[in-house]
Amino acid sequence: MRIDILTVIPEIFESPLGCSILKRAQNKGLAEFHIHNLRDYTTDKHRKVDDYPFGGEAGMVMKVEPVDRCISALKAERDYDDVIFTSPDGEILSQPLANTLSLANNLIILCGHYKGVDYRIREHLVTREISIGDYVLTGGEMPAIIISDAIVRLIPGVLGDEQSALSDSFQDNILAAPDYTRPADYNGWKVPEILLSGHEAKIAAWRHEQALERTRRLRPGLLDE
Amino acid sequence: MRIDILTVIPEIFESPLGCSILKRAQNKGLAEFHIHNLRDYTTDKHRKVDDYPFGGEAGMVMKVEPVDRCISALKAERDYDDVIFTSPDGEILSQPLANTLSLANNLIILCGHYKGVDYRIREHLVTREISIGDYVLTGGEMPAIIISDAIVRLIPGVLGDEQSALSDSFQDNILAAPDYTRPADYNGWKVPEILLSGHEAKIAAWRHEQALERTRRLRPGLLDE
Repeated sequence: MRIDILTVIPEIFESPLGCSILKRAQNKGLAEFHIHNLRDYTTDKHRKVDDYPFGGEAGMVMKVEPVDRCISALKAERDYDDVIFTSPDGEILSQPLANTLSLANNLIILCGHYKGVDYRIREHLVTREISIGDYVLTGGEMPAIIISDAIVRLIPGVLGDEQSALSDSFQDNILAAPDYTRPADYNGWKVPEILLSGHEAKIAAWRHEQALERTRRLRPGLLDE
Repeated sequence: MRIDILTVIPEIFESPLGCSILKRAQNKGLAEFHIHNLRDYTTDKHRKVDDYPFGGEAGMVMKVEPVDRCISALKAERDYDDVIFTSPDGEILSQPLANTLSLANNLIILCGHYKGVDYRIREHLVTREISIGDYVLTGGEMPAIIISDAIVRLIPGVLGDEQSALSDSFQDNILAAPDYTRPADYNGWKVPEILLSGHEAKIAAWRHEQALERTRRLRPGLLDE
């Protein structure tokens, strides 16, 4: 999978793309990231990517032209499955949406910034608006990393067997059961006896019951879906 | 505000904390971040922060001891408002929750990783579990950045006047109206006439109508809250 990210803060991606799963996916040749500085697609000498909004509102708005020029240059090279815009009004990111996007070959992610982007970008260039949640962030850069992580880890071969994505929370609409590791007694905080019993069937039953109980208590909505 | 982040991937925070609003908040003395490598709180020579789970499940689980030692060391120095654990089963991050957290003086954020953390950490050390959304990520590090961004930008003085957080989406349970900037005609894509009219009251009415219409169409749930 190839992901092209369009941003006004290219340097913010350095460490998130250079660590952990996103680095591993790149090292394995399963994902590639290309970060595009929108200032490189301006034509004026001040390399202006934003301007005042029409209508007298406060805040700056991202201009159409640099975004259009960057996307056009990319599309001239290859087909893209989607041009994603990270926006608080977008479709909320979910595990089913991550599953769908993980099948794409080429994605563009445009990171919103400033007060917003010229609405014509959203009308004419963007094919999918995604929000990572109902809260306000300073820019779309970290959401682009969140979306990338959520989808790249689903590409076969990115995770090792022992990290299998299939046993994650949400893949089966149920939260995970509690996990415990050594020591069995940490200053009086004890691991449930059943997990030390060695009785596989009983442990599996206990884990399933705990997972259901936690889902009912913490996220009853998941069980209705 | 002071935020202490506990992680097994300290290097992933470098560029997100060194750019944009989080950098500005630090430069203004309004926020400080302290990244703690959990390996520094191990006592064995291999600096082991994870171990196999009891009960024979796949995956590795974060151990109690390094987390407990790190949190104890921090709590010995100052009081913390909350010890947050980034977890897919936590309370979903929302703007009201961000508003609440923005009033804190000292926060600890423990980043989950591997398959999960020993459940005793969640029972005895964590005071608040937060999820940034119903999707699976590789670790809690980027969620810690998301939470930090959402709350730090609400601290008075972090944003300039023109970026005022008050006109953001969600602060009044309504999406933002469309924004446009120059040129008024970009290759035939035109800005709505009304915005070029100079008629302030009509523009304000149009913006409110557009915001309502977009909220009804894209996020009807917000209007019921």
